[in-house]
Amino acid sequence: MPARNAFYAQSGGVTAVINVSAQAVIETARKYPKKIGKVYAGRNGIIGALTEDLIDTSKEPLENIRALGHTPAGAFGSCRYKLKSLEQNRREYERLIEVFRAHDIGYFFYNGGGDSADTCLRISQLSESMGYPLIAVHVPKTVDNDLPITDCSPGFGSVAKYVAVSMREAGLDVASMAKTSTKVFVLEVMGRHAGWITAACGLAAARTGDAPQVLLFPEITFNPQQFLAKVDESVRKFGYCAVGVSEGLQNADGKFVAESGLVDAFGHAQLGGVAPVIANLVKQELKLKYHWAVADYLQRAARHIASRTDVEQSYALGKAAVEFAVKGMNGVMPAVRRLSSKPYKWDIIAAPLSDVANREKKMPRDFITADGFHITQKCRNYLQPLIAGEAYPPYQDGLPRYVTLKNTAVRKKLGAFSL
Amino acid sequence: MPARNAFYAQSGGVTAVINVSAQAVIETARKYPKKIGKVYAGRNGIIGALTEDLIDTSKEPLENIRALGHTPAGAFGSCRYKLKSLEQNRREYERLIEVFRAHDIGYFFYNGGGDSADTCLRISQLSESMGYPLIAVHVPKTVDNDLPITDCSPGFGSVAKYVAVSMREAGLDVASMAKTSTKVFVLEVMGRHAGWITAACGLAAARTGDAPQVLLFPEITFNPQQFLAKVDESVRKFGYCAVGVSEGLQNADGKFVAESGLVDAFGHAQLGGVAPVIANLVKQELKLKYHWAVADYLQRAARHIASRTDVEQSYALGKAAVEFAVKGMNGVMPAVRRLSSKPYKWDIIAAPLSDVANREKKMPRDFITADGFHITQKCRNYLQPLIAGEAYPPYQDGLPRYVTLKNTAVRKKLGAFSL
Repeated sequence: MPARNAFYAQSGGVTAVINVSAQAVIETARKYPKKIGKVYAGRNGIIGALTEDLIDTSKEPLENIRALGHTPAGAFGSCRYKLKSLEQNRREYERLIEVFRAHDIGYFFYNGGGDSADTCLRISQLSESMGYPLIAVHVPKTVDNDLPITDCSPGFGSVAKYVAVSMREAGLDVASMAKTSTKVFVLEVMGRHAGWITAACGLAAARTGDAPQVLLFPEITFNPQQFLAKVDESVRKFGYCAVGVSEGLQNADGKFVAESGLVDAFGHAQLGGVAPVIANLVKQELKLKYHWAVADYLQRAARHIASRTDVEQSYALGKAAVEFAVKGMNGVMPAVRRLSSKPYKWDIIAAPLSDVANREKKMPRDFITADGFHITQKCRNYLQPLIAGEAYPPYQDGLPRYVTLKNTAVRKKLGAFSL
Repeated sequence: MPARNAFYAQSGGVTAVINVSAQAVIETARKYPKKIGKVYAGRNGIIGALTEDLIDTSKEPLENIRALGHTPAGAFGSCRYKLKSLEQNRREYERLIEVFRAHDIGYFFYNGGGDSADTCLRISQLSESMGYPLIAVHVPKTVDNDLPITDCSPGFGSVAKYVAVSMREAGLDVASMAKTSTKVFVLEVMGRHAGWITAACGLAAARTGDAPQVLLFPEITFNPQQFLAKVDESVRKFGYCAVGVSEGLQNADGKFVAESGLVDAFGHAQLGGVAPVIANLVKQELKLKYHWAVADYLQRAARHIASRTDVEQSYALGKAAVEFAVKGMNGVMPAVRRLSSKPYKWDIIAAPLSDVANREKKMPRDFITADGFHITQKCRNYLQPLIAGEAYPPYQDGLPRYVTLKNTAVRKKLGAFSL
């Protein structure tokens, strides 16, 4: 069988290391010239496939492909665009096949999270459902760390390292000012449905009394009175209190705390920002001086402080995806399997996409302390290896030298398609 | 004359590198045993002097003193406490002299910003005004970069590097998602009165179209219509818009934009947070999807991404302070003098404190583009050397190994003093 081309796309929220997986897919594909021809990337994810907006990665200088290994965000563009089921939107699947056929695409690599795994599963079934021969492999990625089967998700380790480092640094700041100034500091982090990132903040506290003294998880219903009592206790004991809070923190009525009160001058509800709500509560009830920070995209784009473990796994998973594909393994996702925590050992297994799609990995309750305000030793043992090691990008004139790809378009062969 | 002891205190908001100056003061003082005995640090700044809460730095293990060189925040504690004038509060000055005399303190090193320089100046006059022989030298420090005479202020270069790196990273994130998701990103940075830190965000943009496309300075009155037009233009041209905004941005009526609208559920004005106000405006008027981040303490505590130039200058200034003192130079501040920008060359001069105290260095208007929304090449030439070079801390288990000092107290000799 002659070599066929491969399609690679980035999907959903980007991370500090998704480009590392892209690099791995491209570099590994080149090691199998008898099986894989060119690697075409979708411009802005799956939208690039639907609109036949393909990027020819073979036109990219080698050093640019290598530089993906230290460049955050999505170098080919990503998108939030979920394909409906075949029954609901046959038109889009027929278009995909039309594009794949026009460009002789026989391999489909989709680099994304849970929703994308579902899309990848559907595409892996095209061979059977619509008679187009295609091997589809999912490359895992999500800062939310909520993919099942895999021990962790690429992108998470680097966010975890960022929030733990930031919390340790800001905690020292507050501690040194607390005598006469700020006594409570609130850092808001990502993770709307799962508290993995909030938990990672907790790694900053190596000893009793270290920041953060309080964590607010999306898994634990917010109890203002208990929270205020914890803050008060910390300020009395240690002179200050640093709080890590998930953007997804919920009230007893199941509503996001972030949406529970702030309105602008026109009375519009202010979207986002649980940190100011929490900080205001502390000020109103405890009369303590506060500061708050919202890390937002800074945390997931922070390649400058990426975890080496995360970088290595992102590469290994992209590489494994191609190796699975050339072996003819369709509808799978390479996953990290933890062999031991101390010393940290892991390998890669193949997870069937039917077991991955539409399943969220929640944080176990025993990763959170009984009072709901911190992480347990078990959680630390899980998290610690994931933030281990540094992997600094090169710098020029004081700034990281991130690559912007040329992203040369493949000549179109088909007519337009409206999304 | 026998050696006399030295007093060192940290004052005002801490930085990623103020401890580097502390290290330099302590290490340099040890090189002049005939002049300087012990270095006592004030616990929580000048409050430590007033309450006779002194720390004996000679009891600290050598490796801990060395580790100050890579540890952010104030290792001895800082404070916001401004001494009034001698006429207004003779009691405090008399107490200081009482404490200094009890512990044979002949040298006073004050590590702070503009307000602290004023305090240091008053203390340098104690010899004349109250007959207590003392040499007082100010060690400059402020992330606001608003000290006069010195070309830059220690602490600023590291914040500048942090915000430039963060903006570059978040900008790449937004660019890769903009096709279907977030189109406008707002990063709020410090600098209530001067736009130096906001300007540093601008360094992230190496080429036309790079993030940030828009900067909002405290020096330029906020004009919502012009701002929205700039954002709209950037989204049309580049697909997205990243905005760096100073916490001190003001409306035409001279009020802080941060305080111009948001109220909590109880109707209390929400303090702080210009980013959400700006982001809401974009959403209401341009109907664009947005994200916003508030860096807050993360930016000034970020030792993990400190500027090497900043670290080197912080050490050099602490060292020079001691060298000035042993030469008998009273009432001065070592200041950085820029000799050339390309290549970057600097040396240290002595600035009389009477020229430093209560004078703010504003950003020159020609550092801001004519339209008020970005920085000029002149500004880049000034800023660029200040963020140059990296100075990574050591890591352990994935986190920076910052030191917590033992901070052994000096035995008290006097009665209590109420602040």
